[in-house]
Amino acid sequence: MTTTTTTPAMTETPTSKPRRPAVPRNGVDTPTLFATIDAVRAQRELARFQFRATNRWIQGTHSKSRIESFFGAGTEHAHAAANEYDADHPAVLVGSDHGPTPVEFLLHALAACLTAGIANIAAARGVTLTEVESTVVGDIDIQGLLGLSGEVRNGFERIRASFRIRGEAPPEKLREVLEQSRARSAVFDVITNQVPIEITVDAG
Amino acid sequence: MTTTTTTPAMTETPTSKPRRPAVPRNGVDTPTLFATIDAVRAQRELARFQFRATNRWIQGTHSKSRIESFFGAGTEHAHAAANEYDADHPAVLVGSDHGPTPVEFLLHALAACLTAGIANIAAARGVTLTEVESTVVGDIDIQGLLGLSGEVRNGFERIRASFRIRGEAPPEKLREVLEQSRARSAVFDVITNQVPIEITVDAG
Repeated sequence: MTTTTTTPAMTETPTSKPRRPAVPRNGVDTPTLFATIDAVRAQRELARFQFRATNRWIQGTHSKSRIESFFGAGTEHAHAAANEYDADHPAVLVGSDHGPTPVEFLLHALAACLTAGIANIAAARGVTLTEVESTVVGDIDIQGLLGLSGEVRNGFERIRASFRIRGEAPPEKLREVLEQSRARSAVFDVITNQVPIEITVDAG
Repeated sequence: MTTTTTTPAMTETPTSKPRRPAVPRNGVDTPTLFATIDAVRAQRELARFQFRATNRWIQGTHSKSRIESFFGAGTEHAHAAANEYDADHPAVLVGSDHGPTPVEFLLHALAACLTAGIANIAAARGVTLTEVESTVVGDIDIQGLLGLSGEVRNGFERIRASFRIRGEAPPEKLREVLEQSRARSAVFDVITNQVPIEITVDAG
């Protein structure tokens, strides 16, 4: 989930109203995007969102998550469809490979967040995109999670994302769009900074 | 991706060989799990893994990732199936809701990683599980990513995971299994600690 800012540098208009009329671009409803930002600016409690996933163990390292409802802008919402996602370990990690590993879903989340931000920010800046592709890779030394080393962390040591962006703007402007997406990306923030996780359990 | 350690506390046998024979449990091939850990202990370079996702922008905030190949244990691997995952923003966030938001995939990843670890560790400890369910929620104030506040972060402020675990063991033992899963979880580590992300771009 990545979107845009309303600084003058981004919208290319002063933030004082009336704004120069924005037009939909890149499949982004830019007028509605700006109206949404204005609505949240006027009523800050609309900015509180809560996202959710429920998960059920199937067997071995295979489980299935369901993503269905969320709270935001003062009310409950249901996604257009309730989606389910399998996760597992591959055979080389003693699983049955009924789906990607959990860490691969992190890479998907990062790519999708930065890409959504690129589309939004390009639209806000009047840049028409023709292509955005990315590959995200994460390196992990599994001595950590296997408990074979106290020096090796459990998770990724590093993540690298490489983007290919084409659009009707000079390369420098496209690079600036990516940079602004990074600066406003929720997933980039979660992974590069830390988020506290509280775990509770009903065991019986 | 979460698995187990081989400390005496976990396996309930001394780490010196021969081990008391392990038996498959919870759908986990426990003998192969222990053999895998021994193989990595003997040849540390097998522990190097690289996971990958490729993503393609479709339109607006909608993109699609493909998860197909990975490197590990000294060689390239292909998943049993090449899976594709849509991500989007919902209407209230000016998207078309063709899939969950990127941040929801993070919650799925966390639930799936902790759950895989629970199954592995329970099997290693001789605990038969009957049920593992979880709900993971993340709270986010979107003033950050909308650029409406310099004080609010872009990503989740906090994440809470609640587990329900049932099995043929006292509640205290089930809680210890969860705690060990947390202590060895790759996704828990990524989210609660920080991982550096390098971004490169080919823009034109």
